[in-house]
Amino acid sequence: MSMMDFKTEFKPTTVQPQQIEGRSFEMIDEEIGPHPYTEEQYPIVRRVIHASADFELGKSLVFHPDAVQAGIQAIRDGKKVVADVQMVQVGVSKNRIEKHGGEVKVYISDPDVMEEAKRLNTTRAIISMRKAIKEADGGIFAIGNAPTALLELIRLVKEGEAKPGLVIGLPVGFVSAAESKEELAKLDIPFITNVGRKGGSTVTVAALNAISLLAEQV
Amino acid sequence: MSMMDFKTEFKPTTVQPQQIEGRSFEMIDEEIGPHPYTEEQYPIVRRVIHASADFELGKSLVFHPDAVQAGIQAIRDGKKVVADVQMVQVGVSKNRIEKHGGEVKVYISDPDVMEEAKRLNTTRAIISMRKAIKEADGGIFAIGNAPTALLELIRLVKEGEAKPGLVIGLPVGFVSAAESKEELAKLDIPFITNVGRKGGSTVTVAALNAISLLAEQV
Repeated sequence: MSMMDFKTEFKPTTVQPQQIEGRSFEMIDEEIGPHPYTEEQYPIVRRVIHASADFELGKSLVFHPDAVQAGIQAIRDGKKVVADVQMVQVGVSKNRIEKHGGEVKVYISDPDVMEEAKRLNTTRAIISMRKAIKEADGGIFAIGNAPTALLELIRLVKEGEAKPGLVIGLPVGFVSAAESKEELAKLDIPFITNVGRKGGSTVTVAALNAISLLAEQV
Repeated sequence: MSMMDFKTEFKPTTVQPQQIEGRSFEMIDEEIGPHPYTEEQYPIVRRVIHASADFELGKSLVFHPDAVQAGIQAIRDGKKVVADVQMVQVGVSKNRIEKHGGEVKVYISDPDVMEEAKRLNTTRAIISMRKAIKEADGGIFAIGNAPTALLELIRLVKEGEAKPGLVIGLPVGFVSAAESKEELAKLDIPFITNVGRKGGSTVTVAALNAISLLAEQV
């Protein structure tokens, strides 16, 4: 039985995903109103709004002044990208990272991470960041889910143990998420974060995809 | 070199994810205010708010009166769950579905779907729904990303070609998303959707996980 084997006739539409995206971006440009973002930051804000349909969330983004250039450079240099959870990993456009030799890693379900977290009575998210720093320091850390992962990464940076190329820290939630992002925004390292409880895997993916698109441009 | 091999000492925290979730739910209960949801619908609303930190989004949810019971029944009967994109598939808690014999499928990257979409000059999202109806009719359709997938599923239902057990239709976006959800809400089949542009993979996963948790209860 074929996929097309229905009783009624199939009328193929000719929807072009690029056209939908272009029209969406026009609508965002029309509706966004005044904002404080630079020309290089705005494509990231726009793509976050596109992924969330939430102007409030888009306009809550905060950038370290070096963030966008640092992200572009990390991708062009083929640095690793570390996702905190698998949803972020599968959402990221891989081809624009892998063409430079980079790859998108997630450590949270690795057997050694699970064992170590159990042994130390702590979360897998925390231990996964410790492994990530050993394997991917200098890369892009994209954290969309776990405030505890972001807090551990911040601690490692403060103690001089980690020097990530860029931290995209956009965890969502009612407990610790906003606080973890406030802490990130105090660091003098390249970061993209936001103010408040909102965030999540889809907007983290959107921010990262926006940067890898910028890395395509000359 | 071990994961624990840092210059500074690691102070394990004893963060318990269940405690964080419990406290988050208390905060949502305190802040949500008046709402129209029944006792069986509210756990889904709450988990959507938990995943988005967005009360507006949570309170935009719309339920067909049979939706929650139909979802619970589909899971208990071991029906398939169809995700429109891989981000939804990886986010869903599998164990509560697989223990009843169900599985979480995504068809959008299947070679036959890609070929057929190319041949018919249409989107993979549309063709993936046609394949899903052949392989998983009666199951739960969880659509968090592609309005075109939802519109094709609605068309198949209207033409009597499809009879899904439950449609969770929460695509996000500026073009067609709100309109596709309005169309879904007109159908007399079990659905969970929302009003407006917001939605996405994370809230679709949250709604589905809330239902599979309800299916655990006696």
